Amino acid sequence: MEIENHDWLPTAGGEEGKSKEIPSNLAPPQEGSRRRADTMSSVRSYMGLKPEAPIDEEHEHLEHHELLWSRTRLALREPFAEFFGTFIMVLFGDGSVAQVLLSASNTTSTIAPGGNGYGSYQSISWGWGIGVMLGIYVAGDSGGFLNPAITFCFCLYRGLPWRRFPIYFLAQFLGGFVGAGVIYANYINAINNYEGHNIRTVPPSKTATGGVFCTYPQAFLTKTSQFFSEFITATILMFVIFALKDESNRGAMGKTGAGPFFPLALFFLIFGLGACFGFETGYAINLARDFGPRLMSYAVGYGHEVWSAGGYYFWIPVRTLRRRPSSLMVASFLGCTFGGFLYDLFIYTGPESPINTPWMGLKQLTQPQNLIRQKEKSAV
Amino acid sequence: MEIENHDWLPTAGGEEGKSKEIPSNLAPPQEGSRRRADTMSSVRSYMGLKPEAPIDEEHEHLEHHELLWSRTRLALREPFAEFFGTFIMVLFGDGSVAQVLLSASNTTSTIAPGGNGYGSYQSISWGWGIGVMLGIYVAGDSGGFLNPAITFCFCLYRGLPWRRFPIYFLAQFLGGFVGAGVIYANYINAINNYEGHNIRTVPPSKTATGGVFCTYPQAFLTKTSQFFSEFITATILMFVIFALKDESNRGAMGKTGAGPFFPLALFFLIFGLGACFGFETGYAINLARDFGPRLMSYAVGYGHEVWSAGGYYFWIPVRTLRRRPSSLMVASFLGCTFGGFLYDLFIYTGPESPINTPWMGLKQLTQPQNLIRQKEKSAV
Amino acid sequence: MEIENHDWLPTAGGEEGKSKEIPSNLAPPQEGSRRRADTMSSVRSYMGLKPEAPIDEEHEHLEHHELLWSRTRLALREPFAEFFGTFIMVLFGDGSVAQVLLSASNTTSTIAPGGNGYGSYQSISWGWGIGVMLGIYVAGDSGGFLNPAITFCFCLYRGLPWRRFPIYFLAQFLGGFVGAGVIYANYINAINNYEGHNIRTVPPSKTATGGVFCTYPQAFLTKTSQFFSEFITATILMFVIFALKDESNRGAMGKTGAGPFFPLALFFLIFGLGACFGFETGYAINLARDFGPRLMSYAVGYGHEVWSAGGYYFWIPVRTLRRRPSSLMVASFLGCTFGGFLYDLFIYTGPESPINTPWMGLKQLTQPQNLIRQKEKSAV
Amino acid sequence: MEIENHDWLPTAGGEEGKSKEIPSNLAPPQEGSRRRADTMSSVRSYMGLKPEAPIDEEHEHLEHHELLWSRTRLALREPFAEFFGTFIMVLFGDGSVAQVLLSASNTTSTIAPGGNGYGSYQSISWGWGIGVMLGIYVAGDSGGFLNPAITFCFCLYRGLPWRRFPIYFLAQFLGGFVGAGVIYANYINAINNYEGHNIRTVPPSKTATGGVFCTYPQAFLTKTSQFFSEFITATILMFVIFALKDESNRGAMGKTGAGPFFPLALFFLIFGLGACFGFETGYAINLARDFGPRLMSYAVGYGHEVWSAGGYYFWIPVRTLRRRPSSLMVASFLGCTFGGFLYDLFIYTGPESPINTPWMGLKQLTQPQNLIRQKEKSAV
Repeated sequence: MEIENHDWLPTAGGEEGKSKEIPSNLAPPQEGSRRRADTMSSVRSYMGLKPEAPIDEEHEHLEHHELLWSRTRLALREPFAEFFGTFIMVLFGDGSVAQVLLSASNTTSTIAPGGNGYGSYQSISWGWGIGVMLGIYVAGDSGGFLNPAITFCFCLYRGLPWRRFPIYFLAQFLGGFVGAGVIYANYINAINNYEGHNIRTVPPSKTATGGVFCTYPQAFLTKTSQFFSEFITATILMFVIFALKDESNRGAMGKTGAGPFFPLALFFLIFGLGACFGFETGYAINLARDFGPRLMSYAVGYGHEVWSAGGYYFWIPVRTLRRRPSSLMVASFLGCTFGGFLYDLFIYTGPESPINTPWMGLKQLTQPQNLIRQKEKSAV
Repeated sequence: MEIENHDWLPTAGGEEGKSKEIPSNLAPPQEGSRRRADTMSSVRSYMGLKPEAPIDEEHEHLEHHELLWSRTRLALREPFAEFFGTFIMVLFGDGSVAQVLLSASNTTSTIAPGGNGYGSYQSISWGWGIGVMLGIYVAGDSGGFLNPAITFCFCLYRGLPWRRFPIYFLAQFLGGFVGAGVIYANYINAINNYEGHNIRTVPPSKTATGGVFCTYPQAFLTKTSQFFSEFITATILMFVIFALKDESNRGAMGKTGAGPFFPLALFFLIFGLGACFGFETGYAINLARDFGPRLMSYAVGYGHEVWSAGGYYFWIPVRTLRRRPSSLMVASFLGCTFGGFLYDLFIYTGPESPINTPWMGLKQLTQPQNLIRQKEKSAV
Repeated sequence: MEIENHDWLPTAGGEEGKSKEIPSNLAPPQEGSRRRADTMSSVRSYMGLKPEAPIDEEHEHLEHHELLWSRTRLALREPFAEFFGTFIMVLFGDGSVAQVLLSASNTTSTIAPGGNGYGSYQSISWGWGIGVMLGIYVAGDSGGFLNPAITFCFCLYRGLPWRRFPIYFLAQFLGGFVGAGVIYANYINAINNYEGHNIRTVPPSKTATGGVFCTYPQAFLTKTSQFFSEFITATILMFVIFALKDESNRGAMGKTGAGPFFPLALFFLIFGLGACFGFETGYAINLARDFGPRLMSYAVGYGHEVWSAGGYYFWIPVRTLRRRPSSLMVASFLGCTFGGFLYDLFIYTGPESPINTPWMGLKQLTQPQNLIRQKEKSAV
Repeated sequence: MEIENHDWLPTAGGEEGKSKEIPSNLAPPQEGSRRRADTMSSVRSYMGLKPEAPIDEEHEHLEHHELLWSRTRLALREPFAEFFGTFIMVLFGDGSVAQVLLSASNTTSTIAPGGNGYGSYQSISWGWGIGVMLGIYVAGDSGGFLNPAITFCFCLYRGLPWRRFPIYFLAQFLGGFVGAGVIYANYINAINNYEGHNIRTVPPSKTATGGVFCTYPQAFLTKTSQFFSEFITATILMFVIFALKDESNRGAMGKTGAGPFFPLALFFLIFGLGACFGFETGYAINLARDFGPRLMSYAVGYGHEVWSAGGYYFWIPVRTLRRRPSSLMVASFLGCTFGGFLYDLFIYTGPESPINTPWMGLKQLTQPQNLIRQKEKSAV
């Protein structure tokens, strides 16, 4: 109930607020159009999305429901937004690694003088930071999560409907997968030039280019340290994002959270994680950004080593405790969950967080009707 | 019709809105002044500009129409803005390349210690990013396109009058041309110092300074990769610009598009393109920024190689398929068109995009009266 | 009295303003709840905090006072905010030093190509700048001081209750201490890889990693220069922060102070201090950021040298004149005090600064009842 | 007359607007206080300042006029602001050069690993950019010019009273002079360590540290190129500042000029000038930033070479054409004047620019009563 007051919540006020703004004296749509609209609403509700797609009220006047494609993209509006947001993020992120890595040997160029290639490690911080910032602008309508672990935490702590998780997950994964494919297509000549034709290797190979697409840990790291590094980075990520989005966190001069500075603040956050926590495991902190491109690199011929490198390290962003086959928990999910837990435990006072309910929400777990109730709410 | 509601559109509400704000009880201008004003309006309409130049309503009280120069600059207000915006952009962009390139051998300076010259490749990302950001501030009145391909896409997808394209194109081209000339004048001693007196070469010459003015591709690139690199970069550019300018793309906390953060976001976008896609072909993505300075470098004596280098690569930003003489299509135009198409197909819902009309606007192509109607609209 | 009008003051309007916004027609809480609330209010008043914790009025409806933990975190709301703000700051700051230092020998990596490691000195400027910026967002409810010397100056010059100083000090110190511990845990493998197992040294050892946690001065510095460097840096810090937070400092276009740009401006301020004043003593300028991590590095085994290095230089941020055992004054406190004095003497006109009272507030020192009055004010 | 409507003008609406906001029903001040206030007003008017100092209306209630110091600082409010703004700017700017230069030989440090010292040329761009940004925040009440040539152009083109120029000039010069002194005091040990005790040299000496304080041109530059480089940089500076401050330059989405982004945009502008035009002459573009520190470096013992280096190049920022003894015009002034001329000629439509008056203001020169009228206006 109070959830509805948090208008930045993708499930709640934000979009509902918009639909309220539509003047009620509009002419009723025709019968066929109405029926199609009803179908779309139920499809959307099934995915956990608001029945009404979040579009500008001025654009409502169009015969959106008359055309098959218009209906499709209204039905899939938020997943499309997440797809393209993650796509843009990975284009810039993987693109920056590709440029730095592949130009490192390019010491004779006169366009990039000084013999230092076309970038340094810091360029990668820029690339990922810019990718996330612009991806958030692109994915404004869906919340701009771009990361399954973050979507997960918004479901867990901020009342985002759980039903929405699978379709967002799929969209994010595909965004990373396709983005990595475009980067590969763009840099295929440069990779051939760097590694040799049809040679594709991953670290610790000396000329490995597999690091363009996904992360490989430093050799000196123990399994525990691999996990801890990803875990703490994800914890910080989620903790700070919750702070930046917390409208009840009033700073000096009455500002609440980061407000319109949010995308810019995310640039600094991601840049900072790269500059401060990127050395050991490459700050994957995002299954969509790591697993999608990893699969793509496997698909284009980097071989089985993309999975086995670093002692099957890739499980860390995917599934940490591989001895427990039932475990779906992974470092980025665990870290984000812990970061959100910390924030809500010590700082957040909003009622939609289970931490702020009696017994810190554990009671809810024993009362499955709560989940049902939430489901109904999101379907309204 | 609905187009008029999008007040950020250079053709529409934005400027019209301003003229509406002028108090109607102003004393009528004298007869001669009125006649001159009418002449100016028709000149402006002929170029596809709004009849009334977009100036502050407080400044309307001046006897603008009395003086020849005042009338001229009101008539050419937007082209002047585009000229100076592109001029500033190229000054910073080419200036950054010049500084990095020409100071690379300057390892003994005590002012720039460390023997690394006065910048690295990253400085070039800064230079172009800052140039675009400041150019947009300068060219506020014209829309701040600074790139013919972007103007083209606003004509195609956002209802900017086609008639405006040629004069904007000319202004942007001249801005790039003159900007490159100023950079050459500024760095002529340094170029002499670097290459030798009256020696002017382009890559792959070891001491080439032609790269200061325009882009030259890496030697290992195939023609297809040259094209793809420019194409994908232009695609991203247009896709993200449409997202940043999309007021119906509501992000978290009710913000719509990038709003006043637009110039800053463009800094990050251009920086990111430089850091992530600048290695292979130098991210020209802009005919005005590449062809204008290229012509200037030819004019000051870099020789025929400015055209033939990289297998007549310069056609890529100008005319990709040189075997088809009728083709005016070029990589940056094709890429931007595709990027705008992607955005409108999957995300944008506004009615001024032909993608959002029946048959995705193809029907309009078969009905030339639409173009006529648009022409009339812009002439009102 | 006028102090209450400065609503950005943590002690004053800001929080009181919020409580005023609570609709007065709320149903009165139950008796037990009211009693618990009263207890909490007096605990908070004892610490110099406003009786009502600064939380969103919408969140007031919760049964916050029913649960022990809810009461605890309301009572300690601002200290928690300071703790986590400093924690985040030190995570990014020390993390950036760790990454730059520990990856310097990592010249064979293919992920960070070019053989320059995973960052340069500039990365450290980024790390601390980002840490402070994000820490301020996290610690919005407490004022985001993150530095005992800054809290001190707000008590001295801006009417922040002196009673609040100890609990803030403790929170900030613990934030730095715990943050350094997390960084140590995260980078323990990398430290072992760099220094060797169980070898932990501080400068001037060639493989010292002690600099990850706290600052060590350059060898060529005299004691006076050590002090002056820290003093002038702290002076600039406080002077600029007062300018940025000064709502009566109206710049061009009617803006007052930095407003919502404050966290971003702090990024630039801290970055600038690192880039311009970080060479000699490492710009500690913050007891919480230096002493907390120094103690942690001592705890994990860096030995007595963490204290004795640089001729017991660490006293500079802690206690400058070690010959005078009664002196609690330290370089960062002296510098900040001087910076605040300069700003209030030459620029600030607000009445809550003692500089703007007769005899520049010295009269107040001779009239202890003023302090008492202030104490009462903060307890209201 | 219309000037008064431009409320960002230091001379006009901005401050007058404030004084208007003062409730008129305040109790009249006592007789002695009123007399002192009258004295202050006439002192301020004599300097071309508004009779009422620009302070917050809430702060007006204080007995400002009772205390000598309060009266003094009200009388000198804007000069103090300019002094401290320039002071802060030079601290960061010269500090960044000092750090980069003096740490270049510091390749054994373990705190700044990688053997690349504590910064690179880019750090200097950061330093000056941050210095200008923060200086503008500090000098909000005076307009934040920080540069005599910019003050000059605001007098010439924007109706700032000419009488204000001398006191601003003095304040800016002293700010640079004192700032350079603080930097020298801070880095004296490091300079001794770098050059040797009591050895102070300027370029082209191999160990010169004179470049910390002021600019020295590259050896390969001709006199004309020295002049052109400074001239074009100053032109760009003024042109872009006028664009950023032009509220009638409406960009996309209704924003006017840079608005509250102005200090941030200046960061990017100055950074860009450093990255793109800093190689040849060091982008002095500011007499206060170059002449003040140059005099200080002479005062502390850098010898006569601070004046004679580069063929008395220092005249370029001071007096370009030294053969014409009557000329007070200098490169930075000429460049800024030309940049402002360009902007007003092609883009600006406001009536306070003489370019927008008949005969482009030349008529005014022949009618000295205009100057008198302006003088009266500023004294009202």
